[in-house]
Amino acid sequence: MSDSQLDPPAPDPTGPDLSTGRLEAFSDGVFAIAITLLVLDLVVPPRDERHGESLAAALGHEWPAYFAYLVSFLVIGIIWVNHHALCGLVRRVDRLTLFANLFLLLTVSVIPFPTRLLAEYLTAGADAHTAAAVYSGTMLMMAIAFTLLFLALTRDARALHRPVDPATARATLRRFGAGVILYALTVGLAFVGAVATLTVHAALAVYYCFDQLAPARRRR
Amino acid sequence: MSDSQLDPPAPDPTGPDLSTGRLEAFSDGVFAIAITLLVLDLVVPPRDERHGESLAAALGHEWPAYFAYLVSFLVIGIIWVNHHALCGLVRRVDRLTLFANLFLLLTVSVIPFPTRLLAEYLTAGADAHTAAAVYSGTMLMMAIAFTLLFLALTRDARALHRPVDPATARATLRRFGAGVILYALTVGLAFVGAVATLTVHAALAVYYCFDQLAPARRRR
Amino acid sequence: MSDSQLDPPAPDPTGPDLSTGRLEAFSDGVFAIAITLLVLDLVVPPRDERHGESLAAALGHEWPAYFAYLVSFLVIGIIWVNHHALCGLVRRVDRLTLFANLFLLLTVSVIPFPTRLLAEYLTAGADAHTAAAVYSGTMLMMAIAFTLLFLALTRDARALHRPVDPATARATLRRFGAGVILYALTVGLAFVGAVATLTVHAALAVYYCFDQLAPARRRR
Amino acid sequence: MSDSQLDPPAPDPTGPDLSTGRLEAFSDGVFAIAITLLVLDLVVPPRDERHGESLAAALGHEWPAYFAYLVSFLVIGIIWVNHHALCGLVRRVDRLTLFANLFLLLTVSVIPFPTRLLAEYLTAGADAHTAAAVYSGTMLMMAIAFTLLFLALTRDARALHRPVDPATARATLRRFGAGVILYALTVGLAFVGAVATLTVHAALAVYYCFDQLAPARRRR
Repeated sequence: MSDSQLDPPAPDPTGPDLSTGRLEAFSDGVFAIAITLLVLDLVVPPRDERHGESLAAALGHEWPAYFAYLVSFLVIGIIWVNHHALCGLVRRVDRLTLFANLFLLLTVSVIPFPTRLLAEYLTAGADAHTAAAVYSGTMLMMAIAFTLLFLALTRDARALHRPVDPATARATLRRFGAGVILYALTVGLAFVGAVATLTVHAALAVYYCFDQLAPARRRR
Repeated sequence: MSDSQLDPPAPDPTGPDLSTGRLEAFSDGVFAIAITLLVLDLVVPPRDERHGESLAAALGHEWPAYFAYLVSFLVIGIIWVNHHALCGLVRRVDRLTLFANLFLLLTVSVIPFPTRLLAEYLTAGADAHTAAAVYSGTMLMMAIAFTLLFLALTRDARALHRPVDPATARATLRRFGAGVILYALTVGLAFVGAVATLTVHAALAVYYCFDQLAPARRRR
Repeated sequence: MSDSQLDPPAPDPTGPDLSTGRLEAFSDGVFAIAITLLVLDLVVPPRDERHGESLAAALGHEWPAYFAYLVSFLVIGIIWVNHHALCGLVRRVDRLTLFANLFLLLTVSVIPFPTRLLAEYLTAGADAHTAAAVYSGTMLMMAIAFTLLFLALTRDARALHRPVDPATARATLRRFGAGVILYALTVGLAFVGAVATLTVHAALAVYYCFDQLAPARRRR
Repeated sequence: MSDSQLDPPAPDPTGPDLSTGRLEAFSDGVFAIAITLLVLDLVVPPRDERHGESLAAALGHEWPAYFAYLVSFLVIGIIWVNHHALCGLVRRVDRLTLFANLFLLLTVSVIPFPTRLLAEYLTAGADAHTAAAVYSGTMLMMAIAFTLLFLALTRDARALHRPVDPATARATLRRFGAGVILYALTVGLAFVGAVATLTVHAALAVYYCFDQLAPARRRR
């Protein structure tokens, strides 16, 4: 990787654009598409194959699909909000950060797959555990990717709008680490109960609605 | 939620970006994807399964799909235009607004599902009522979400480009409230007639083409 | 429609944003999604249902899908380039223009449907004519929508970067009108031959690669 | 093509916008959608058709789909990063560049199709060679398109932020040429082994993670 790219000469404002602008635009695109593609897995019961059951009853049977849809929508939405806050800390990004971000986008854009899997298998006995474990594993990778992106973004103090003091950085990192451990535990929880696992993911998403980067900003 | 985020120190113009820019970019992405995904539900009749019927006749039978497509396209398009106008009132957004916006995006990005449902069941007797009620219910949630977003955006006078005087705010809110009641009535209408319900949604969308925020701007 | 929106007081640069920025962002989103969704209709032959035919042969039979894909990709790409040039003429847009633009986006985002139809029926005898006519009809609507958008964008001289002199405006409009007539003729051509029709659409797209707005700019 | 478009009079900063901004926005949209659509090809095994096999085993059989997904995700991600760097070299684009870019977007947005093909046929004997050759052929077209875009972007010295000296331009072009030859070789490799071909594509993507434009920037 070329270091020349990380340190463009200060008096060259027209040089290669490494602002956060295009990183955010591309990421927003991936977040927006992944969150909207989820709707493709809400299946309309075929008109001719319901054997006398009413449409209302047929839709009712699909509750695992709606539950999984809502949790995944919330998860992607929260990641977007927190990604927004994270990018707000820095003024430019380097190539390593682009790849850390790409890893996060991989974990986000794959979410429709475990969501579909859980919608199909949430009430399927032993297979429900497998499906829930795949879902939890995806969330674990996402939490790891988010932590790596935080590290990549903040490792170069010169790229930050303002320096983050070491105590705050450690505190924030501890919170991210706790998140990774929590998500790892949900992989184990999958083998206890699939519905419980999805409920815990909903609760974790609500928890992450609250601003995890606030301390980093408040102490400045 | 951290209030520190809402009030960045004034002399820090390079601080965390909470402008409306990225909110609009993400929202535009979701609107654009939801409106374009609708086309996936325009089904091409399979070449080998038409039992001697001409393609023209087979396409003609699909009129409920085209009708539902057009109404949903118009609805999402209008929401986008009005979202555009709403965001134009403020200069920065806080975390609560981000979540109110996320709720609106949830209701918008789910629209392809009830559209697909109505396309399949518009002419299906009793099940048509169920499908139309789900469609109307989605629109009702959308109207509620739009009202909540208006409240979240305008509750902090300092975030507005210019203060909205209380009389105007009340008048605008009354119009939003009327919209919510109208959409609630379409849920009931679904049990009278599905085609009539979809027609009323088309009419409501045309009505909302006209600028609902005009009074708020005109009085400034 | 509120005229107050069209004429924000000049000394209010922080007022409601009616610049072309967000119009372009939303339109770019729809163009980008429509052009990328086309790939979903390139069908992979199922592994177990080919009755001893090689994959290469099975893919070869799919040439109508590749032909239709390429023409539609080119068409949407050209519309994007010309939309880009059109938006470059103005500095702000009003509500009427937003709806003219929405009509154009409707015709663009629906293109995957006639493309799919033509891919399935290009070699299907009498039904090929129907499919080609639907394809041509979509392109005709698109040409009409583009002309309406040009009229909406340029009708308010104050919104233009520079006034377009009447002779140039008339010349440009004549070219758009000729385009509409050409596309109308392709609807008739569909009943002569479907492959010929698709070939003419490819040729028209190549023709529109050249800058149709050049005279409007050159004369300024 | 109108040359008047390439050389807007210098004192007209409000003239038609031919900055790289909208080119990047549209391209980011296509990249983001193509990379996210890949997930649609991760198939959930239908609940009722697994003949006693566990879900875990059924998912395990799908490893070619995951492998192809990961390689294609990486490829599109790298192209995006390098496209970002390439656009950073110039300050405005002309119509020819728009079409070179459109050709690149064609090769990128079609990637989900050969990915799907390879996922289905990676372990299918003779047909695996066909699928791998189609995949390699797509990557070859993409490498050619990227080289053409580089040539189109840098051919007009006045559009560059800073002149690229001829020696550097030749060196960069040689590297692009080498890339085209490597991708051409993978088409031949497809007939040796499909899994080996996909592995080589993964390795090439990792190689392109490193900054290919660095020399062009370093020498300035």
